[in-house]
Amino acid sequence: MTTYAVIGAGAVGGFYGSKLAQAGHDVHFLFRNAASHVAERGLEIRSVDGDYTLTDVSAHANASSIPQSDVVIVAVKSNVNAEIAPLLGSIVKPSGAVVLIQNGLGGEPLIAEALPGEVEMIGGLAFINSQRTGRNQVTHMGNGGLTLAGFRAGYEATGITAWMSAIAADFENTTVPIQLDEDLVRARWTKLLWNIPYNSLSVILQASTADIMDDAQSTELVEAIMHEVMAAASADGRELPEGLDKLMLEATRNMEPYATSMKVDFDNGRPLEVEAIVGEPLRRGQGLGAQMPVTKTIYRELAFINHRIVEG
Amino acid sequence: MTTYAVIGAGAVGGFYGSKLAQAGHDVHFLFRNAASHVAERGLEIRSVDGDYTLTDVSAHANASSIPQSDVVIVAVKSNVNAEIAPLLGSIVKPSGAVVLIQNGLGGEPLIAEALPGEVEMIGGLAFINSQRTGRNQVTHMGNGGLTLAGFRAGYEATGITAWMSAIAADFENTTVPIQLDEDLVRARWTKLLWNIPYNSLSVILQASTADIMDDAQSTELVEAIMHEVMAAASADGRELPEGLDKLMLEATRNMEPYATSMKVDFDNGRPLEVEAIVGEPLRRGQGLGAQMPVTKTIYRELAFINHRIVEG
Repeated sequence: MTTYAVIGAGAVGGFYGSKLAQAGHDVHFLFRNAASHVAERGLEIRSVDGDYTLTDVSAHANASSIPQSDVVIVAVKSNVNAEIAPLLGSIVKPSGAVVLIQNGLGGEPLIAEALPGEVEMIGGLAFINSQRTGRNQVTHMGNGGLTLAGFRAGYEATGITAWMSAIAADFENTTVPIQLDEDLVRARWTKLLWNIPYNSLSVILQASTADIMDDAQSTELVEAIMHEVMAAASADGRELPEGLDKLMLEATRNMEPYATSMKVDFDNGRPLEVEAIVGEPLRRGQGLGAQMPVTKTIYRELAFINHRIVEG
Repeated sequence: MTTYAVIGAGAVGGFYGSKLAQAGHDVHFLFRNAASHVAERGLEIRSVDGDYTLTDVSAHANASSIPQSDVVIVAVKSNVNAEIAPLLGSIVKPSGAVVLIQNGLGGEPLIAEALPGEVEMIGGLAFINSQRTGRNQVTHMGNGGLTLAGFRAGYEATGITAWMSAIAADFENTTVPIQLDEDLVRARWTKLLWNIPYNSLSVILQASTADIMDDAQSTELVEAIMHEVMAAASADGRELPEGLDKLMLEATRNMEPYATSMKVDFDNGRPLEVEAIVGEPLRRGQGLGAQMPVTKTIYRELAFINHRIVEG
């Protein structure tokens, strides 16, 4: 039976890891601060799929006490990838896999470089709406699954790998719908099509998704950014389906007001994932010849805002 | 002796009007709310050039009580131009002049259209740093003069007109340095070169000029916007001096932290001059074929922010 380690057991890692543990897997969790608290009280999941408390959690305060595992799920904020990467080689088995569940671009190459040669690198895209709502509590507010796709240097498509299938099989007995994608960067561009405009504008304009869609000017900004992201994906050899931007706009217009992850970070005074969500896609798109002046403008504004947060 | 009326006796109109009154001119002031307060207590000017109180002020609460004057100085925010324009025909003498002292583009054509045929339209650019600091008080913090330039349909250059010279002569006996410019729209583009980036970014980023210049990303945004404004001026047939953008950046870097007029409006919950300072220049530049994607982005952001202020 596949063994798991979860590095960064927050809103995303805590949720998915607890699902695997519930299904009977051996799951070790690395916490930054809350390890003893969770060991004592368990991990409480408040979920639209039903509440539960995971007890007898293997909660670690240090990576060094985690036994070598088949699969290491990394679910930290992208800002700490560089800090986490050197720890992974001793946690993952030589023939195992690392799954990076994170927004944006640029995480997989950074982490893959730090892994032993045979370890498989997999990207994960979470489509849940979850927040950490207490030291040992995660609240999961929106249904949605997990997409897995393999990583290879240059973000070349890998097809479906054995580890992707094995992990998907392990989630079969949970409530989490898993989707396997043959092309990681296409999946990432698709998610960025939503994430770049809404995360950015929610912070710059201090607005919810509903505020943004209620105003003609900000809606046009979203559209302009989406056009640039589609052009970047196209320059990257991934033609996103025509009309996908319109579909996303329409879906966002019809959904409940939503605070993006970047807005939640801003509201909590945490560093923003500016580079992963905006900077890397911008540099990749521009490097491939795409024109992205609107995205560049919001990138610079966010970099200014983030600088102020980081400098305190 | 030339008689004056000042419509909008705030930070700008109150300051310049009081200078003319001090020099012995008959000056009638229109106040929105403070007329009786000023009539009773006078108009207090706290200035780097020396403090004084103007007493026996001809303070009006209604335009209808102002006698016909040779020169009407309009110094309202651009947002109320449309409301003020219809009042001016009965205040200015048929052979007189209207001077619009205001930031941005688009004010003169709107007002000129409402004036009797023979009345001369003059644009004014204030280079002072003044704020209204009480119901009957204006504080003038930075030296700087007043530039006058004639308006003609399409912003064609008028050269130096008789009224421009006459008004300049009236300011001779004051501390206000007057400059006459032959080409209004060149003067306006030159001022916009500073006003568009700094006013916009000070509100979007909630930053002083010093904050903006202390950060590499926001400084590059200023540069990008300045390039676009210079391209727009060039498309408008006004080549601004090469290197003027660099000079302005350097001057701003060396000046005391400064809250722009748009930031002061924002901080006071007042509508922003988005259209005059950003929207009109953007539309004029784009209409003439200039590429202005960064300016368009900040315009849309400001329009969103202003919408929220106006809607409450």
